[in-house]
Amino acid sequence: MPARNAFYAQSGGVTAVINASAAGVIEAAREHPEAIGTVYAGVNGILGALHEQLIDTAHESAQTIAALRYTPAGAFGSARYKLKGLEENRAEYERLIEVFRAHDIGYFFYNGGGDSQDTAQKVSQLGEAMGYPITCIGVPKTVDNDLPVTDTCPGFGSVAKYIAVATREAGLDVASMAETSTRVFILETMGRHAGWIAAASALAQDREDAPPHVILLPEVALDEQRFLDRVQACVERIGYCVVVVSEGLRTADGQFVADQGTRDAFGHAQLGGVAPAVASMVRDRLGYKYHYAIADYLQRAARHIASATDVEQAHALGRAAVELALAGHNAVMPTVVRESGSPYRWHVGQVPLEAVANREAKMPASYIDAEGLFVTEAALRYLRPLIAGEDYPPYRDGLPEYARLRGERVAPRCPPFRD
Amino acid sequence: MPARNAFYAQSGGVTAVINASAAGVIEAAREHPEAIGTVYAGVNGILGALHEQLIDTAHESAQTIAALRYTPAGAFGSARYKLKGLEENRAEYERLIEVFRAHDIGYFFYNGGGDSQDTAQKVSQLGEAMGYPITCIGVPKTVDNDLPVTDTCPGFGSVAKYIAVATREAGLDVASMAETSTRVFILETMGRHAGWIAAASALAQDREDAPPHVILLPEVALDEQRFLDRVQACVERIGYCVVVVSEGLRTADGQFVADQGTRDAFGHAQLGGVAPAVASMVRDRLGYKYHYAIADYLQRAARHIASATDVEQAHALGRAAVELALAGHNAVMPTVVRESGSPYRWHVGQVPLEAVANREAKMPASYIDAEGLFVTEAALRYLRPLIAGEDYPPYRDGLPEYARLRGERVAPRCPPFRD
Repeated sequence: MPARNAFYAQSGGVTAVINASAAGVIEAAREHPEAIGTVYAGVNGILGALHEQLIDTAHESAQTIAALRYTPAGAFGSARYKLKGLEENRAEYERLIEVFRAHDIGYFFYNGGGDSQDTAQKVSQLGEAMGYPITCIGVPKTVDNDLPVTDTCPGFGSVAKYIAVATREAGLDVASMAETSTRVFILETMGRHAGWIAAASALAQDREDAPPHVILLPEVALDEQRFLDRVQACVERIGYCVVVVSEGLRTADGQFVADQGTRDAFGHAQLGGVAPAVASMVRDRLGYKYHYAIADYLQRAARHIASATDVEQAHALGRAAVELALAGHNAVMPTVVRESGSPYRWHVGQVPLEAVANREAKMPASYIDAEGLFVTEAALRYLRPLIAGEDYPPYRDGLPEYARLRGERVAPRCPPFRD
Repeated sequence: MPARNAFYAQSGGVTAVINASAAGVIEAAREHPEAIGTVYAGVNGILGALHEQLIDTAHESAQTIAALRYTPAGAFGSARYKLKGLEENRAEYERLIEVFRAHDIGYFFYNGGGDSQDTAQKVSQLGEAMGYPITCIGVPKTVDNDLPVTDTCPGFGSVAKYIAVATREAGLDVASMAETSTRVFILETMGRHAGWIAAASALAQDREDAPPHVILLPEVALDEQRFLDRVQACVERIGYCVVVVSEGLRTADGQFVADQGTRDAFGHAQLGGVAPAVASMVRDRLGYKYHYAIADYLQRAARHIASATDVEQAHALGRAAVELALAGHNAVMPTVVRESGSPYRWHVGQVPLEAVANREAKMPASYIDAEGLFVTEAALRYLRPLIAGEDYPPYRDGLPEYARLRGERVAPRCPPFRD
């Protein structure tokens, strides 16, 4: 069988290690020229295929590809773009096949979350139906850690480490000044539907009464009185309180706490973030001086403090995707299978895309304490190995020196796409 | 002359390296037992002297003191507490002398900003007047970099590095997703009166059109139209725009932009931070999708990404304070004197406390561009060496392992303080 080309695309919110998966895919593909010709990467993910904007990664040196391992964000561009169902928008899928056919693309590696695995599966089905067989392999990625089956998702371990480190450091800051300054510090983390990231802050607690003291998760409707009682008790006992809150925190009626009807001077609604909303409760009901931080993109882009475990898994799953394809698998995704937690031992497994597509893994009840205001020892046992190890990027003039691609485009061969 | 004891106190907002100065003071003092007996540290800074709450640092091992070099925040506790003028509150100064006398304290090392240097100077004067001569030496500290005379203040280089790294990393994130997601990203930094911290983000710009694209400084009144024009031009040219804004940004009439009359659902005023206020302008006038981050305490506590230059200077100035005292100086503060910028060469100098007390160094006009929306090459030349070098703390189980003090208290000898 002659070698065929591959298409690699990044999808959804980027992470500190998604490029490590890209490096794994490209490096593994280069080791098999008998089976895989060129790896084309989509400019802005799947949009790059629809618009036939492809980067020819063959023009990137081995050093540049290796540098992707320590470069955050999406080196080729990513997109928040979900292809609709086959019935609703068959034209988009047919366009993908058209572009794939024009460039002799026989492998599709889609690096994303649950939505993307759904897309990869549909492309696989349609290729089959249209007489253009294509091997579609998912590569897991999401800071939210909400993909099922796999022990964890590349991207999560690093954001977890960032949040745990930030909580420990800011916690020391607050503790050292509480007597005359801030009593309650609130750190807002990502996590719209699942509380994994906020939960990881608990790893910072290295002794009784160390921060964080309260963790508010999207899985638990906010009981304002219970929360404020806990904060007050904490301040009265040790002088201060560190609260970590997931952006997806909701009230009992299902409303986002971040969307509490805040209005600016002109009466415009402001989605102010959940941290200021929680801070307002603390101020109005308890009267404590507060501060809050909103880490936002800083947390998922923080390659400078990435988890070595996460980097290794991201790279390994990129490689594994290629190896699965070469072994004849289709419509599958490589996974992390945990053998033991302490010491952490894992190997690469696999799962059919249909088993992960559009499914969300939330925190199990056994990981959340009885009052819903902290996590359990079981959660800590699960989380601890995922942040292990440091993997520093190289620095130049005091700043991390990240990969810069040549990014040479492939000449288009198809008519423009009308969307 | 028999050895006399020393009192060391941390003051004001803590930093990633104030404990490195503490280590310098204690280590240098230990090398001179013929002159300095025990170093007592104030619990919560100067309050520890007023309330006679002193930590006996002699009980801390050499390893623990060395670990302070890589431990952020205030290990002994700090305080936002400014002693009033001698005429207004002579009792407080007399109380300090009472406690110093009771513990045979002949040296006062005060680690803080401009306010603290003022206090140290007054204590020196009053001791003289009360027949209790005491050597008062300031140790500079402030993330705001607003002390005059010294080339920079310990604490600033590390927060500058944090902000530059965060800007580079988040900038890559935004660039890779702008096609379908956030167009304008806003990072709020500390800096109530001086824009040094926000300015340091410019170090991330390693090529034309790299982030950051706009820097809003407290030294320049916000011209909303000019700002929005710049943002729009940037988005139209490269697809996205990264804005770094100092918390102290003001409008032309002197109001904080952060205090724009935002009201929550109950009509309560909310000090929402400057980032959401700027984000609202972008949304309302330009309609771009935005995100913002508020780094807050994360930036000044971020010892994990401290500047090696900053750590070295903090430690050296702590040592120098002791050496100045032993050389017979009084009412002075050691400074960083820049010999050359590239390569960066500096030595320790000194300045009378009266020359730094209560004076604020803002960004000079020559460091701000003509439109007031970015910094100049001169600013970059000044800033560049201050973030140079990494100085990682040790890690255990994926997290930095910071010093933990025994913190043994000295038995009180004075009556309680009535304030």
